[in-house]
Amino acid sequence: MFERIEALHPHYDPELRLLTLTLDHGKANEVGTVTLDAFEALCELLEHGEVACLCTTSRRASKSGTPIFISGADVTERVGWPDERVKAHVRRQRSILQRLRHVPLFTVALSHGVTLGWGLEFLLTADYCLTTPAGRFGLPETGLGIIPGARGTAELALAVGPAHALRLGCTGEEIGADEALRIGLCHEIVPDIDAGLARVRTFAELLRRRSPTAVAVYKRGLLAATGQAEAERLCIEAAAYERCIDTGQAAIGRASFSAIRAGEVPPWGPRRS
Amino acid sequence: MFERIEALHPHYDPELRLLTLTLDHGKANEVGTVTLDAFEALCELLEHGEVACLCTTSRRASKSGTPIFISGADVTERVGWPDERVKAHVRRQRSILQRLRHVPLFTVALSHGVTLGWGLEFLLTADYCLTTPAGRFGLPETGLGIIPGARGTAELALAVGPAHALRLGCTGEEIGADEALRIGLCHEIVPDIDAGLARVRTFAELLRRRSPTAVAVYKRGLLAATGQAEAERLCIEAAAYERCIDTGQAAIGRASFSAIRAGEVPPWGPRRS
Amino acid sequence: MFERIEALHPHYDPELRLLTLTLDHGKANEVGTVTLDAFEALCELLEHGEVACLCTTSRRASKSGTPIFISGADVTERVGWPDERVKAHVRRQRSILQRLRHVPLFTVALSHGVTLGWGLEFLLTADYCLTTPAGRFGLPETGLGIIPGARGTAELALAVGPAHALRLGCTGEEIGADEALRIGLCHEIVPDIDAGLARVRTFAELLRRRSPTAVAVYKRGLLAATGQAEAERLCIEAAAYERCIDTGQAAIGRASFSAIRAGEVPPWGPRRS
Repeated sequence: MFERIEALHPHYDPELRLLTLTLDHGKANEVGTVTLDAFEALCELLEHGEVACLCTTSRRASKSGTPIFISGADVTERVGWPDERVKAHVRRQRSILQRLRHVPLFTVALSHGVTLGWGLEFLLTADYCLTTPAGRFGLPETGLGIIPGARGTAELALAVGPAHALRLGCTGEEIGADEALRIGLCHEIVPDIDAGLARVRTFAELLRRRSPTAVAVYKRGLLAATGQAEAERLCIEAAAYERCIDTGQAAIGRASFSAIRAGEVPPWGPRRS
Repeated sequence: MFERIEALHPHYDPELRLLTLTLDHGKANEVGTVTLDAFEALCELLEHGEVACLCTTSRRASKSGTPIFISGADVTERVGWPDERVKAHVRRQRSILQRLRHVPLFTVALSHGVTLGWGLEFLLTADYCLTTPAGRFGLPETGLGIIPGARGTAELALAVGPAHALRLGCTGEEIGADEALRIGLCHEIVPDIDAGLARVRTFAELLRRRSPTAVAVYKRGLLAATGQAEAERLCIEAAAYERCIDTGQAAIGRASFSAIRAGEVPPWGPRRS
Repeated sequence: MFERIEALHPHYDPELRLLTLTLDHGKANEVGTVTLDAFEALCELLEHGEVACLCTTSRRASKSGTPIFISGADVTERVGWPDERVKAHVRRQRSILQRLRHVPLFTVALSHGVTLGWGLEFLLTADYCLTTPAGRFGLPETGLGIIPGARGTAELALAVGPAHALRLGCTGEEIGADEALRIGLCHEIVPDIDAGLARVRTFAELLRRRSPTAVAVYKRGLLAATGQAEAERLCIEAAAYERCIDTGQAAIGRASFSAIRAGEVPPWGPRRS
């Protein structure tokens, strides 16, 4: 099941339906074509499999001992590429990260260390972001004559508001975990990676009891409503709600009401989002 | 004036033009058809009356002493309903809560206790949310095979951002008052209900001095601008500003400038939004 | 270079390319036609010049010693104006503040004192807002029969969310620096004006090393994406990214990679946004 994402070092807990990726590649977890291929395969797997919760983390450190989550895109592979190839490559990055943002399950990023450029953009694909005190975040792009091209321009302000997005993107100022929490780039600070993984397991415990269809429908509706006017937002919500009825999930929930109260997991069946 | 909303236990202070609802019905302030009817009548009353500030709260507690604001929708009344009736009922919920969100005056929710499902969605209709330390918030829906169908999918991210909205909606994790304040679901914590009511009275004191027309125009413009691109947002603002001139409110304000400075209330007249 | 903005008391540091305005006019830095003219000239200057960072502040105090940033619009000049002239004047305010919001460089407001009405709306044009503990913020408009007409209705909720925007605009409640930080109206508190100016210089130090073109493209893309649905946001990002390639800035960055690492500033050339 996981051979196509071996490059992402997957570990799967079938009882919790929790997939954990512990990134460990290249010099500093920089993301180039090979890793992108694996993330694309990951999307395919998540869209059709039973995984209910994804956690992406890293225990990597530099030679000098600095912890690293994702140091950025692999720019060395681009040496000598003509402009059109760079454009096509960044379009592919954007497209894969957009697809990852919409996988029909709950996703968590757990940063422990350097999270720059593409690494910060990866955070923006996660539903929820944890960081240890070692987290370090920044957008170096404008100092290199480019801009963040895979969500860092389009999506960052949705997470942190326009002011902090402009500060990070225009000035390139790097921030630590406390500041990332304050501005809303990360949502909780955990003492260390193990504590972060324990926090993710509490989410997975909650998620495994819930209708995979309803979770997927909720996430899709919420993301689709973003950036829409109210009338459109409410139309999206109406269609999403009625999808839960039409797939029979609401009826399963009603029929299982006592069982749910007693702590049992209803027979939701596979996701039908 | 208030007979059609008796089910909501209204108390009106005519000097402050402050209407306070102290919910107290059913087993746990669950909201079914009868209460929905009363909320619909409330909208009618607020749209045409002189009320300048609405506060909704509850002093209810469960048998075991747990404080309750609104425990959720009344799902027991739906037993045996065909799917189409459930859909129509939820459409009506959504429609009434949307109408309540747009009433032309300042509205405050003051939670003291359990605020789940529909209760949390009710918070999203209020302009401003207070909670006591007893506030407890969550979205159990995806654990029942459905999704929040009356603003909890469409509107929650506007209040708390996409990450916390996805966490609450996908995992169903419940949170307390401190966490609700941190993520922006509630906007202030007050020590207890009486302190919350005192806080609302300070708002009402400010509001009674202001042009009811200008307040209504401001609220309508601000809500209409949400989810629009900048050019459209500024068009909405321009029309709203000029409405204040065309209704004569700006002229009353200019003519009353010294009186306003001296603490008097200008003769704004009834709301003409 | 700066004669047309003398009314704004400019000081320019050519090494940092940092332009600092220290407002000091009228009774209380109220903004009327003359100051608006200067802000319009400022936009022209910033759109075509080399300035990389703008800071607007004030050391003004009232006779009784209350510090003042901008006390509001100059309403006394409007006495006797017919309605159509007031409308045209406010349209011009809105248009100039919109233009200022989009200047192709990083802008900071540093408030030390009273920041009411138009003053608060001015904050909403800045990319980043600092305040000293003396900052005091409010929207008195609805108490005067009008609404905030130059971003305070259209844009405030983007900075502070709908709840705090409705509270400020509907009730007119004034808030201090701590509360402005909490709700996201200001982004950092600095001990005093000199500390604020030092903070701005750290931004300017970062900015002078970066591609002026990439910074401008980032800011334009981020602002254009606001209030759009995701597909449109990503299209805007794609066009912005490719603009950095087509202007040759990405190539300069790649060619200067070692120099950038060594702390040198690449030959970015003038801004081509």
